[in-house]
Amino acid sequence: MTLNPKLVRRTQEAIKMLEGQPTIAPELLQERKEKAADWFRSLRDQICNRFEALEAQAQLTYPELYPAGGQIFERTPWDRPEGGGGEMSVMKGRLFEKVGVNISTVWGSFAPQFATKIPGASEDPRFWASGISLVAHMGNPHVPAVHMNTRFIATTKCWFGGGMDLTPCLPVEKDTIHFHQVLKNMCSQHDPSFYPDQKAWCDDYFYLPHRKEPRGIGGIFYDYLNRGNWDKDFAYTQDVGLAFLDAFCPIVEQNMGHLWTSDEAETLQRKRSRYVEFNLIYDRGTEFGLKTGGNTEAILMSMPPMAKWD
Amino acid sequence: MTLNPKLVRRTQEAIKMLEGQPTIAPELLQERKEKAADWFRSLRDQICNRFEALEAQAQLTYPELYPAGGQIFERTPWDRPEGGGGEMSVMKGRLFEKVGVNISTVWGSFAPQFATKIPGASEDPRFWASGISLVAHMGNPHVPAVHMNTRFIATTKCWFGGGMDLTPCLPVEKDTIHFHQVLKNMCSQHDPSFYPDQKAWCDDYFYLPHRKEPRGIGGIFYDYLNRGNWDKDFAYTQDVGLAFLDAFCPIVEQNMGHLWTSDEAETLQRKRSRYVEFNLIYDRGTEFGLKTGGNTEAILMSMPPMAKWD
Repeated sequence: MTLNPKLVRRTQEAIKMLEGQPTIAPELLQERKEKAADWFRSLRDQICNRFEALEAQAQLTYPELYPAGGQIFERTPWDRPEGGGGEMSVMKGRLFEKVGVNISTVWGSFAPQFATKIPGASEDPRFWASGISLVAHMGNPHVPAVHMNTRFIATTKCWFGGGMDLTPCLPVEKDTIHFHQVLKNMCSQHDPSFYPDQKAWCDDYFYLPHRKEPRGIGGIFYDYLNRGNWDKDFAYTQDVGLAFLDAFCPIVEQNMGHLWTSDEAETLQRKRSRYVEFNLIYDRGTEFGLKTGGNTEAILMSMPPMAKWD
Repeated sequence: MTLNPKLVRRTQEAIKMLEGQPTIAPELLQERKEKAADWFRSLRDQICNRFEALEAQAQLTYPELYPAGGQIFERTPWDRPEGGGGEMSVMKGRLFEKVGVNISTVWGSFAPQFATKIPGASEDPRFWASGISLVAHMGNPHVPAVHMNTRFIATTKCWFGGGMDLTPCLPVEKDTIHFHQVLKNMCSQHDPSFYPDQKAWCDDYFYLPHRKEPRGIGGIFYDYLNRGNWDKDFAYTQDVGLAFLDAFCPIVEQNMGHLWTSDEAETLQRKRSRYVEFNLIYDRGTEFGLKTGGNTEAILMSMPPMAKWD
């Protein structure tokens, strides 16, 4: 809809740097694609294991809040007729009311209109994309919702992108500080500009202009990352994935025992309506998925289990 | 997102006819604007009165299904800083779980990018628009949700648009037949092509490509109506508004006494998720409103009170 000028400029700068990088030899690119896809799969396994452990811990420690049930991920593979496919992992638990962790590796050709908007696709509309994407909606209004995504995309150019952001219903200052501190520490090991730039990009991106509201308390967001050193960019993307667990899981453990009122449960449903609005109106990942014939069920797994509007 | 070729062609044909019409003298246009805006206001009053009567009837006749409460519309006027404003009328009853009837009369200038997409606005981006828009979400899964909208828009050209469509959760064939029959009878008094064309346009428009599902059982949809005879076009738009009550209210009366199970209530919440998806991803009225700085609360009044996703 309305485009934020800062966001537009930041995106253009990243694309410019990326477009200046040389094209990679096909064999080398193939090897990198495999490495990236393997990593996203292994990260998925780590995250699912950790989330199942948290769910079990919650049901064991606070059975009055989280009665036993639904504490494992169910996996559903899917194929994409045009090429590739993916695997959805969904857990509908009590602590994790609904969490989806999707991986996918897809390829094909962008529609002509769409290709002009993607770096390196104007000259050749073929693309390859692999990534992991997760959204967790928690049953307890004191435990924030979270989103994380990282991806590697190749056209005639290639780049990494991703990020994560936290959406508390009832924000707690020390959780916000912890989440950002973990990201800042991780980023600073790669590039001093990453945290401030990617935090600002995240704030710009996860904003609902029609509500004049941020989606949550931010995090980091990066796209079109290609500094001319694939190994370094890949290492960063791997660290983003690992930092996610350190940034999010302690907040879950810290707050899972907090009782909630029916008013707070209602507040959570209303907060979730904004999540729905953001994802359906503004989110580029949703748009990309729907426009490239992605798996609708996997794309819209980001929807909360329930939402309320006034 | 993906554009339906039939819908694109139908829209282009209507725009072509409209653009062939001469520009109207300012005093005459002013008079017509006032007539149109007055009509939308008076239609709003008729609809609200009728809906309040239905709500009262439901609470009186079926108190076990519809306990007393919330049976009148609350009105909230709003101003638009750029020019004009509107009035929301909202009833949160038992039969009408949430119904919003909005009227608005707004004016201003389209943003340059947007102006090129609107007939008669490339040469002069100023616009004036008045209309009525309603969405009713019913508490009983056996009573369909409904949407109706009619509007008069003026740039250097002017035209009417509107329509209505029914979204049953648990469709009943005779209700579908009744709804379409009322529309067909009304349309046929104006132009034999209206019903078949506008029914097809409605089917094309209220479709969710990513779900491969229609939103509901259709109705009529028209836009860019200007046959070179304003009185005839206005009379048609008035009849659309009046036909709405005849098309919808008997279906409400017919089904309001039908008991529902908790499974059916759940099915209703899931059906509503598609309504949310349609309005936020595809609906042009929502896009128009948000892009022209409309009142967010009024625009998103179309959202159901609650929705569920799997």
